[in-house]
Amino acid sequence: MTLSELRVDGARLCQRLEALGEIGAVSGPNGERGCARLALTDADREGRDLVVAWMHDLGLAVTIDAIGNVVGTRAGADPTAAPVMVGSHIDTVRTGGRFDGNLGVLAGLELIETLEQHGVRTVHPISVAFFTDEEGARFAPDMLGSLVYVGGMALEDALDVRAADDGARLGDELLRIGYAGPTPCPAPGAPHAYFELHIEQGPVLEDAGITIGVVTGVQGISWTELTITGQSAHAGTTPMRLRHDPGYVAAAITTGVRRVAREMGGSQVATVGRCEFVPNLVNVVPAQVTMTVDLRNTDEGLLRQAEAAFAELCTGLEHDEGVGIVRRPLARFEPVEFDAAMVALVESTATRLGHSTLRMPSGAGHDAQMLARVCPTAMVFVPSANGLSHNIAEYTEPADIAAGANVLLQAVLATAQVVAAPDER
Amino acid sequence: MTLSELRVDGARLCQRLEALGEIGAVSGPNGERGCARLALTDADREGRDLVVAWMHDLGLAVTIDAIGNVVGTRAGADPTAAPVMVGSHIDTVRTGGRFDGNLGVLAGLELIETLEQHGVRTVHPISVAFFTDEEGARFAPDMLGSLVYVGGMALEDALDVRAADDGARLGDELLRIGYAGPTPCPAPGAPHAYFELHIEQGPVLEDAGITIGVVTGVQGISWTELTITGQSAHAGTTPMRLRHDPGYVAAAITTGVRRVAREMGGSQVATVGRCEFVPNLVNVVPAQVTMTVDLRNTDEGLLRQAEAAFAELCTGLEHDEGVGIVRRPLARFEPVEFDAAMVALVESTATRLGHSTLRMPSGAGHDAQMLARVCPTAMVFVPSANGLSHNIAEYTEPADIAAGANVLLQAVLATAQVVAAPDER
Repeated sequence: MTLSELRVDGARLCQRLEALGEIGAVSGPNGERGCARLALTDADREGRDLVVAWMHDLGLAVTIDAIGNVVGTRAGADPTAAPVMVGSHIDTVRTGGRFDGNLGVLAGLELIETLEQHGVRTVHPISVAFFTDEEGARFAPDMLGSLVYVGGMALEDALDVRAADDGARLGDELLRIGYAGPTPCPAPGAPHAYFELHIEQGPVLEDAGITIGVVTGVQGISWTELTITGQSAHAGTTPMRLRHDPGYVAAAITTGVRRVAREMGGSQVATVGRCEFVPNLVNVVPAQVTMTVDLRNTDEGLLRQAEAAFAELCTGLEHDEGVGIVRRPLARFEPVEFDAAMVALVESTATRLGHSTLRMPSGAGHDAQMLARVCPTAMVFVPSANGLSHNIAEYTEPADIAAGANVLLQAVLATAQVVAAPDER
Repeated sequence: MTLSELRVDGARLCQRLEALGEIGAVSGPNGERGCARLALTDADREGRDLVVAWMHDLGLAVTIDAIGNVVGTRAGADPTAAPVMVGSHIDTVRTGGRFDGNLGVLAGLELIETLEQHGVRTVHPISVAFFTDEEGARFAPDMLGSLVYVGGMALEDALDVRAADDGARLGDELLRIGYAGPTPCPAPGAPHAYFELHIEQGPVLEDAGITIGVVTGVQGISWTELTITGQSAHAGTTPMRLRHDPGYVAAAITTGVRRVAREMGGSQVATVGRCEFVPNLVNVVPAQVTMTVDLRNTDEGLLRQAEAAFAELCTGLEHDEGVGIVRRPLARFEPVEFDAAMVALVESTATRLGHSTLRMPSGAGHDAQMLARVCPTAMVFVPSANGLSHNIAEYTEPADIAAGANVLLQAVLATAQVVAAPDER
């Protein structure tokens, strides 16, 4: 067997996914097998303990840093070389699946086990990381662990974050579950490179019949909350021309941003996910409507163009309908572009392995976008059945899991540089 | 003074409105003086007791029927003639005002007191009625007392209705407050005619600078609840072309029915008053949206046309967006047309008294629409400040109150036929 023929054991990887998924397991009425392992809960501790045990089994040197990020490292031939890092997260949302995050971490372990089995040594160390609180479901913001890891948020501020559910302090919860580690965070040195294998969490790959998504970057995000105030009125006695209806304005904004996204095309998306009427009665023109608009684009200039079109829409409706609109920014992130050479490596590797590929942006946030601040970074996507994620029906075919893990393996090998051929057992 | 110069005492009428409004009084932060006198509560009993005491003071013969409707009658010269009835209700919504309903009843008493004072006798008796549970805020349906009065709902069914708030049985509450009367209901004989003075509860008169609304009838009502089911999806990872977004469809229906109403013009109105997103999260395309559509028109044919346009809109969107729409009818009432001669009488009377008039439909329901089933019926509207009603800020100017009461007085006199000229004291 040559190095380029080296493959992971897909069944073993799926077994680890199963075993980890049993911790915090949630079952659905139609046989769905989901997972609820919110960050820094007892379930998260159990999940962490299991993965750390597997790291020890594989002989990795395990460090836990001050924000609870865990890194298991396999030594390289060059003691001065920075590690090639493979990572993701193992926390889930409340009604989560078993693949989101977990796949990237366990594919890293599978990759190490494959190298061990075949006696492959690399110049650079290879480390497998899982970062604290990627989902942000319990502690905001999301991607918190990797954000602190790259120095984007002060450690003390992160430790002081309170849980959305029970108000617990993040630092206290870390201590409670035994994952307030001694390793400094932010990390003093950057990895040589960072790879993350992840499920797509969307329908694009499945829809196109493609196995490997070559992720070019992460979309920029613009979230706005709108509070639209009109004049509550009787639905029967108020002629249309005398209305100041915030519900109508909310509807016109919803159809308006859809039109903006359609007309701009490309990666532009626009979503109205929240909408609340007050007083919310069948025969009363609402007094006030609160809604959110989520705009995303891979290109900062185009995202600004979408924001401008949205703002213009609001101003026009405010005037035409005689309502007040207060716009409150909830979140704003610029797009992240991954390293061109790393992206090309993922693409050529997947093609060499015989997989169909599609270059695509990530519409969701990932730890990789934080790591991209400090080292060359790339991501590999595999298809999500029905585009579902953050859902107990989340699923990816075993063949796709193996394909993604093999692309990860080969891309990591190319980056970490092999010093000894696989043994010929 | 000639009969045509006879006028009510506006100040006395306003004093009675004040006194009745103090029972269940609610104050607002900006000096608003509202009222909460839900049907068959202790506050309702106190209000009823006060109005009945006034009826006795005026020498009226008071009857209470089996559904709690109260009628005070001033005898006429012809003992066989049916009474000309003036009526409305004195129950309010939870955050109600002091004019809705109360004005029509107390204007009836003021009218009687004016006739007494001037020694005016009529051929027909004149009765003043207040009907049980017009608002429907505690016991559904609304206009319950007048509906039973005209035989539109069986007495036993009405007595068995349960309160929305505490589940109390209507019949038990009637007994508890002492208003389960001995007079049969439905009433064995119909009134000779029915008049109701009411605040407009809308902005039309104020907007047009008109004092008297000559009500031509009551709009037909069509209420539909829609449940729109799509595919919940990630706001970042799901391209626009792959979405099945019930929130977008709800918005397109909202703007669509507005367009239908605008294009049809006339009395057509369309309102989306309720709208609820599930799961209602900023970054999730909703899985399901529930909303209501309220369509009204004075013309049954046009109302059906609006319903058809609405149905077509739904079918088109269901297909285009790939969502499911379940439409559930919540309520459907045909328009009511008031007696042409009675409407003309109100109009000519108001004009003769020097008031500006506007023929208009009622967009809200009133006891008058029930009485219209059994006798010639008309309504008089006076302006609502800012179009507000069912609101503690509900207000009508004293001058408008007096104007409306005088139109009522003169129209009732013309219908009840005067047998003796006013004394010349």
